[in-house]
Amino acid sequence: MRDQEIPGHNRWHPDIPPAASVRPDDEFRVECRDWTDCQIGDNDSADDVRDADLSVCHMLSGPIRIEGAEPGDLLIVDVLDLGPLPGHGEAAGEGWGYTGVFAKSNGGSFLTDYYPDALKAVWDFHGQQATSRHLPGVRYTGVAHPGLFGTAPSAELLERWNRRERALIATDPDRVPPLALPPDPHGALTGLAPAGDAERIAREGARTVPPREHGGNQDIKNFSRGSRVFVPVFVDGANLSVGDLHFSQGDGEITFCGAIEMGGFIDFHVDLIKGGMEKYGVTTNPVFMPGNVEPRYSEFISFVGISVDPDDDTNLYLDATTAYKRACLNGIEYLKKFGYTGEQAYLLLGSAPIEGRISGIVDIPNACCTLYLPTAIFDFDVRPTADGPRTADRRQCAVTS
Amino acid sequence: MRDQEIPGHNRWHPDIPPAASVRPDDEFRVECRDWTDCQIGDNDSADDVRDADLSVCHMLSGPIRIEGAEPGDLLIVDVLDLGPLPGHGEAAGEGWGYTGVFAKSNGGSFLTDYYPDALKAVWDFHGQQATSRHLPGVRYTGVAHPGLFGTAPSAELLERWNRRERALIATDPDRVPPLALPPDPHGALTGLAPAGDAERIAREGARTVPPREHGGNQDIKNFSRGSRVFVPVFVDGANLSVGDLHFSQGDGEITFCGAIEMGGFIDFHVDLIKGGMEKYGVTTNPVFMPGNVEPRYSEFISFVGISVDPDDDTNLYLDATTAYKRACLNGIEYLKKFGYTGEQAYLLLGSAPIEGRISGIVDIPNACCTLYLPTAIFDFDVRPTADGPRTADRRQCAVTS
Amino acid sequence: MRDQEIPGHNRWHPDIPPAASVRPDDEFRVECRDWTDCQIGDNDSADDVRDADLSVCHMLSGPIRIEGAEPGDLLIVDVLDLGPLPGHGEAAGEGWGYTGVFAKSNGGSFLTDYYPDALKAVWDFHGQQATSRHLPGVRYTGVAHPGLFGTAPSAELLERWNRRERALIATDPDRVPPLALPPDPHGALTGLAPAGDAERIAREGARTVPPREHGGNQDIKNFSRGSRVFVPVFVDGANLSVGDLHFSQGDGEITFCGAIEMGGFIDFHVDLIKGGMEKYGVTTNPVFMPGNVEPRYSEFISFVGISVDPDDDTNLYLDATTAYKRACLNGIEYLKKFGYTGEQAYLLLGSAPIEGRISGIVDIPNACCTLYLPTAIFDFDVRPTADGPRTADRRQCAVTS
Amino acid sequence: MRDQEIPGHNRWHPDIPPAASVRPDDEFRVECRDWTDCQIGDNDSADDVRDADLSVCHMLSGPIRIEGAEPGDLLIVDVLDLGPLPGHGEAAGEGWGYTGVFAKSNGGSFLTDYYPDALKAVWDFHGQQATSRHLPGVRYTGVAHPGLFGTAPSAELLERWNRRERALIATDPDRVPPLALPPDPHGALTGLAPAGDAERIAREGARTVPPREHGGNQDIKNFSRGSRVFVPVFVDGANLSVGDLHFSQGDGEITFCGAIEMGGFIDFHVDLIKGGMEKYGVTTNPVFMPGNVEPRYSEFISFVGISVDPDDDTNLYLDATTAYKRACLNGIEYLKKFGYTGEQAYLLLGSAPIEGRISGIVDIPNACCTLYLPTAIFDFDVRPTADGPRTADRRQCAVTS
Repeated sequence: MRDQEIPGHNRWHPDIPPAASVRPDDEFRVECRDWTDCQIGDNDSADDVRDADLSVCHMLSGPIRIEGAEPGDLLIVDVLDLGPLPGHGEAAGEGWGYTGVFAKSNGGSFLTDYYPDALKAVWDFHGQQATSRHLPGVRYTGVAHPGLFGTAPSAELLERWNRRERALIATDPDRVPPLALPPDPHGALTGLAPAGDAERIAREGARTVPPREHGGNQDIKNFSRGSRVFVPVFVDGANLSVGDLHFSQGDGEITFCGAIEMGGFIDFHVDLIKGGMEKYGVTTNPVFMPGNVEPRYSEFISFVGISVDPDDDTNLYLDATTAYKRACLNGIEYLKKFGYTGEQAYLLLGSAPIEGRISGIVDIPNACCTLYLPTAIFDFDVRPTADGPRTADRRQCAVTS
Repeated sequence: MRDQEIPGHNRWHPDIPPAASVRPDDEFRVECRDWTDCQIGDNDSADDVRDADLSVCHMLSGPIRIEGAEPGDLLIVDVLDLGPLPGHGEAAGEGWGYTGVFAKSNGGSFLTDYYPDALKAVWDFHGQQATSRHLPGVRYTGVAHPGLFGTAPSAELLERWNRRERALIATDPDRVPPLALPPDPHGALTGLAPAGDAERIAREGARTVPPREHGGNQDIKNFSRGSRVFVPVFVDGANLSVGDLHFSQGDGEITFCGAIEMGGFIDFHVDLIKGGMEKYGVTTNPVFMPGNVEPRYSEFISFVGISVDPDDDTNLYLDATTAYKRACLNGIEYLKKFGYTGEQAYLLLGSAPIEGRISGIVDIPNACCTLYLPTAIFDFDVRPTADGPRTADRRQCAVTS
Repeated sequence: MRDQEIPGHNRWHPDIPPAASVRPDDEFRVECRDWTDCQIGDNDSADDVRDADLSVCHMLSGPIRIEGAEPGDLLIVDVLDLGPLPGHGEAAGEGWGYTGVFAKSNGGSFLTDYYPDALKAVWDFHGQQATSRHLPGVRYTGVAHPGLFGTAPSAELLERWNRRERALIATDPDRVPPLALPPDPHGALTGLAPAGDAERIAREGARTVPPREHGGNQDIKNFSRGSRVFVPVFVDGANLSVGDLHFSQGDGEITFCGAIEMGGFIDFHVDLIKGGMEKYGVTTNPVFMPGNVEPRYSEFISFVGISVDPDDDTNLYLDATTAYKRACLNGIEYLKKFGYTGEQAYLLLGSAPIEGRISGIVDIPNACCTLYLPTAIFDFDVRPTADGPRTADRRQCAVTS
Repeated sequence: MRDQEIPGHNRWHPDIPPAASVRPDDEFRVECRDWTDCQIGDNDSADDVRDADLSVCHMLSGPIRIEGAEPGDLLIVDVLDLGPLPGHGEAAGEGWGYTGVFAKSNGGSFLTDYYPDALKAVWDFHGQQATSRHLPGVRYTGVAHPGLFGTAPSAELLERWNRRERALIATDPDRVPPLALPPDPHGALTGLAPAGDAERIAREGARTVPPREHGGNQDIKNFSRGSRVFVPVFVDGANLSVGDLHFSQGDGEITFCGAIEMGGFIDFHVDLIKGGMEKYGVTTNPVFMPGNVEPRYSEFISFVGISVDPDDDTNLYLDATTAYKRACLNGIEYLKKFGYTGEQAYLLLGSAPIEGRISGIVDIPNACCTLYLPTAIFDFDVRPTADGPRTADRRQCAVTS
C-alpha cells in the first residue's frame, strides 16, 4: 500500500472508508509523506515554514481496516521498522529532513512569546544519525517514530471531541495562536470517501493536531522501532491511520514542528485482544511498550524548571507546563554561552533525543520539571568547568526573508 | 558532622548560621533524619500519616559553609554516596522506610480528589532493593537521592519568594489543601540562630516544601549516587542544607510523601566555579549531571495521558499537569485489573522507579504525558496478553483507623 | 555499486583490482550476498549445510579504493546502516536468514565433538527482530553487523599469513576438521583480475575464514549500526572489502555458521587518518568504537566455565577457549531442562545476542569465562525457581536426511 | 559475624567447621579483610607487592552453614550490598585500595613476560568512584564484587581437584611462575578446626587461587550489587565462604592482583532450591544473574586481538587466551601514545570497568577477542582523531626499590 497511489486523508472521521484491509497477525508496509505534504524544502530560508498551510496537515496514510476488530477490542500494533526513503531527493525524507518553528501568527510554538518568527534547520541523514548545516557542532542518533497514529473515532467520540474543543475555543476565540483548531473544510482531504460523504466529512472531521483517546498526534518519541502499542478500537475494523514520521524528536517537540520531520516508510504487525479495553481498563488512551533499540546515552547535562512565570515572577500552582518551559529557557540560555543563537538552541532542544521529565508535581506551589540533554551529541565539551564555556562561531539557522 | 549533635533547621533564611564549615575540594558526610523528624512508624496504620504535623517539615541538616563561596558563584556538589542506616530500628531509615499519601485535609497529594484519605506502605530494605508487606508482588531497586538540598537565599530572594507565594495564596486563601504554605513560626527550627534572631527567622523563613531558584525540595529522583550538581550561590559561604532522603521515588512523587522516605547518610564533595552563574547563564535554577549507577530497566509498560479533565471531559490548554494526572489514573486502573486496590496502585506509582515524561507539549489543545512503569519490578507478568490479566489477592496498604 | 553487477571475490590478495573508487568523506552503499553465495535455502533440511562448498566462502563485495589512502594510514569506516533486503524471496536476506552447524567432516564448529552433524535453523525477520519455526519460544532483536571486512594485505603481509598458517597446518596435516585452510585455487573468485593475474591470485590468495591484522572475518557482533572502525592500510587505496552480513550473532559465533546469516545492504562512510598507524600505535589489528543502538537487555542468566576439560577432567593452563566451551556446554544443559534439544540450544547460543566474557584469566591454573543469555528473548520464564523448570515440547531444528 | 573476631581460613576443605549458621531466607553481613590479609600498604613503593607471601592468600570469611542445605541442592546467594569500610585507615578498604602486578618470580601475571617486575597503584575512594595518584587522568565508577566465594567441596571433589592440578604441575614442575599451586601447609589457616584436624586440613586443603566447580576465585566483575548466584552444594550445610572483595575490576583481572583490592563488608541473603543441581542441570559450575546497578557507559574504544603469538608470529589454533593477550597489548600500545607508561596502562586495564569478550572462536585458525574500554573514565579525549593523540606527562605508578 502506498499513499501516493490512493488519496490520503487529513481529518479524523468514522466514515472515511478503509484504503486497505489486513488480518490479525499480518505484517505490512505503509508509506507516508511528511506531515505538511511536501510544503517545506531543502533550502536556507524559513519562508516556506512561515507560509505553510496548516489546514492540509497532517497528511495521513490509511485508514487500514483490521478484519474482525470491533469496538471494545484493543488493537495491538507493532512498529517493526521505519525510516526515511533511500537516496537524496526533493521531498522531505529522501535523505534529509527539517525542523521548524512556526510563526506566532501561523500556529506558534511552545516558546512562541520568545521566538515569534518562523525558523528552520535542515538535516542530512547518515544512517540513523543526523547533522545540520544550520546547527554545526551536533550529530545525533535519531529515535525514529511516527508522530501520529490512531484508530478512527466513533461518531459519538468525534462529537465529544468537537464539543469540548469548541468550548475551549469559545473561552478566547480571537487568541493568536488559537487555543484549538475546529473542524474546517478548507484543505480537507477525505481519502476514498464518495462525493456525497466527502463534504460532510470535511465539515465534521476532527483536526489531526492534538492527541486524543484513540492515540492521534501523541508525538511520543519512544514509539520507536520494536514498540508495541495497544490502541482502543471504536469502530468496526478499527481503521488505523498513520503519518507524521519523525527521524528524531526531543520530549515535548517544543518548536511545534520540532521533530526532524520526514516522509518515509513504516512496517507494522497487527493483532487483537478481543474485549481488551474492559479486560485491561484501557478506555481513555493507548498503552504501549517501547522497543529496546533506542539510542543509548549515559551522560547528560540537565536543566531544572519550576512553575514560576519567567517573565513576571508569578507563582503558578503545580503547573508542569510552565516548569518545563522554564527548564527549556534555562537550557537555551546555557547553550547560548557556547556560541549558539537562541534560535539555534531552540531548534536543537526540539529535535535532539532529550528527555523531559515531570520530576516533582506535589511540592506546593511549584512543579519541578527537568530536561536531560545528552552530552555526547556535541563535538565539543558542553559540561560546566572552572574554565568557563568554550564559545565559537556556530553560524545561524534558516530565518525568514 | 551529625545532625543529632546540633540543632536542625526547617526553614530557609540567610541568617541561619552555618553548623559546619568546609573548603572547596573537601569530602564529608552528613546525616539526616527523615523529613518528618520521626513522626511515622513501622506499623500497619496510616494514623501517623493522617496526624503528621507538617509545620516541622522538612527536617534539614546544615547549613554547611563553603569557604570562599560568594554570590554569583556556582557551587559544585557531588553526591558521592547515600543510603539508609545499618541495622533495623525504630527510626525511618534504620532498615525500613515508608511511603505515605497525605489526607486532603492535611496537605493532600496529586490525586487527592480521588484518594482523600491518609494511606501508608512500609518498606523493608534489602541492599538497594525494597519490598513491602503492604504491596506484595513488587520488589524494586531504589534510585536513592536527597529529595531536598539547596543553598541559602539572599534576603532579597527570600523576600521575593514570600511575596510571590503570598500573592498566589491570596487568589484562594481558604482552599483545602492550600495553594502554598506561607511563613509560619509554629514548629519552626532555626538551627544555631541566637535567641534574638531565632524568632525573626521563624517569622520570615521560607517554608521548605517547594523547589525554588536555589534548588530546595526539587524531588528529582535522578540526583542519585555519582551525580554532580551546580547550584547558584546567593550568600557568602553558600550555606548548603540537605534533607528528605529517599530510598526510591517515581517521577512526580505523586502521593506527596510518595518516595520511600528514610533517614540516613549522604556523602558530599564540594567545589566552586567562581562567577559561574554569569559564565554559564545559570541564574534561575541549578543544573546537574546524573550519575551512572541508576538501576537499569529495559522493558516498560507505559501509560499515556492528555490534558482533558478526567471527570468532566473539559479540555485544558496544553496542561501537562492534567495530562500526567490522567496518565497516572490510567496506570492505576490498569493495575487494579491485576488485583491491587487503587490505594495500593497509587502508592506504587509514587515510589517505584517510574519515569514521567512530557512527550508532547505543542499539539493544541492537548498536552501528552507518559508514565513508564518497569515490568521487571513485578513478580508476575504485567504485560497485556490475549488471555487477560492474572488477578490475585494482593491484600491492602495501611489505612487509617 | 552492486555486487551482482560485478564479479565478486573470495580471497585476500593485493592484486585484486578495485571494483569501485570513492573519496574520503564519501558515503556509499554496498550490497552483499550471504557468505555462501546462496548455497543455503529456506527449507527444513540441513542437507544444504552438510553439502556446502566452503571453498567459495566468503563471497565478498569490493574491493573499494579510497583515494589518497597509503600504507601507514588508518582508514576510518563508519557503519551508517545495514540490513536485509526488503520483501521475501529465495536468497538468504530476502526476509529470512539461517543459522547452521557445519558437520565435523566439513569445517566443524566450536562443539563439533559433541555435535558432529550438520544442523540448521531458518529465521523469519520482523523489522529488527527474528523468530524461527525451528526454535519456538524465542524472539530476539538482532545486533546486525558485517561479519567480515578488511583492507587488502600487502604482498609481504600476505606471504606472512600464508607462511604462519602453513606452519600450523604442518603440525597435524590430516586433522579433521583442519587446523587452518591454505590457499586453494578451487572455487576461487578473483573479481576484476585480468586472466593472467587471476590464476596466480587464486593460487596465492589467503582464504577468508580467519580474522587477521587487516580485520577480516572478525565476527565481532558489536560492529553494528553507528560503529566507527579504524583499519590499518597496507596497500595504496586501502582496497576495502566487505561481506558475511549477520542479522544477529552471539559472542563467539559458536556454531561456526552461527550468526543469523543473510545477504543485504550496508551503508558506509569513509575517511582517513594520515599516518594513523604510527600516531596511535595501531599496527596489528583494527580499533573500533561500537555504535549506540545495540539492543538493550537488562536481565541475564549467566553460565560460568573454567578451563578443565569437560570430558576427561584434565586441567588446562589458563585456557580461555576451554573455559568458554564449558560455559557453552553448561548453558546447553540448562536449556535442555526447558524442553529444547541440545541441537536447538546450540543453535540458540550461536545466534542470540549473548555476551561471552573472559572474566578471569590469571587465577592459575583455571581461566574463567562467562556467557550472558538475555532472559527477555524467551516467551517463558527461564530463571531458576524453587518450582523447577517448566518444560514443553519445543520441536526440533532442521537435521540432515 | 566479623572475621576479625574468629579465625579466618585460606584453604578449601570439607572439614573446616562452620564459623556461623544461618537459615534459608536469612539476611546477614560478613566482613572481610583484603585478600592478602593486610600485606599491602597505602604508599608509593611496590616492594610490599614484590615481597607478598602468597601462601596466606586468600584470606576468607566463613564458612557459613545454611541449615537444611544438602548435597545436590542449589544454594541461592543474593549479593544485597558490599563496599569498603568507612573512614580512612591503614588497612586496604578503609577509604583506599590497591592494584598490583605480581613479579614473575612471585606468582606473575597475564603479561608477565612483558612486565616481569612488581608494580602497584593506590586508589582513593570517593563514594563509588576511584582515583589514583599513580594513574592521573582517570576516574571510574567501580563494579564492586567479591572476587571469591564458594561452597565447601566434598572429600571426593577435593581429591579430584588435587589430583588434576598435580597432574598439570607434573608436566612442567619447575616452571616460573608455576602452572598451579598444590596444597601447602605453609601459611595455612584452618579456621575453627580443632588442633587434630588442622594439620591434616593444612596438608590436604585446596589452594584458593583458581575458580572451580563450587565457584571459588572466579573474579567475575558482574557479581555486583543485586546479583543472584546459584551455587552447587557438595556438603551438608553448604559451608559458604567469601573473600577477596574488589572495588572495581576489568574483565580478566589481567595483572593478577588486578582489581582494586580492598577489605570491607558484604551483605547476603541466602535461600535453597532443593535438588536444584539435577532440576536445572547445574552440576559443574554456578549459574548467576547479574544485578541492575552496574555502572552505565555508552561509548567505548575497543581493541581487537587474534590468536597469533605477538612475539614470534606463530599461529595458535583458536586460542582465546592469546587473542585476549594481544588485545590487551594493543590497548597498552594505544594508551602509551597518550603519555602513560606501559606499566600504568597495564594497571589501568586490570582495574577499570573494561569488558573482555570472546568475539569469534570458530574462524580457523584465529580466535578473535575484544577489549572494550569506556572513554568516559578519562578526563581527556581518548578517541582517535586526525590530529593525533594529545600526550601529557602522566607520571608513573609505584615500582620496586
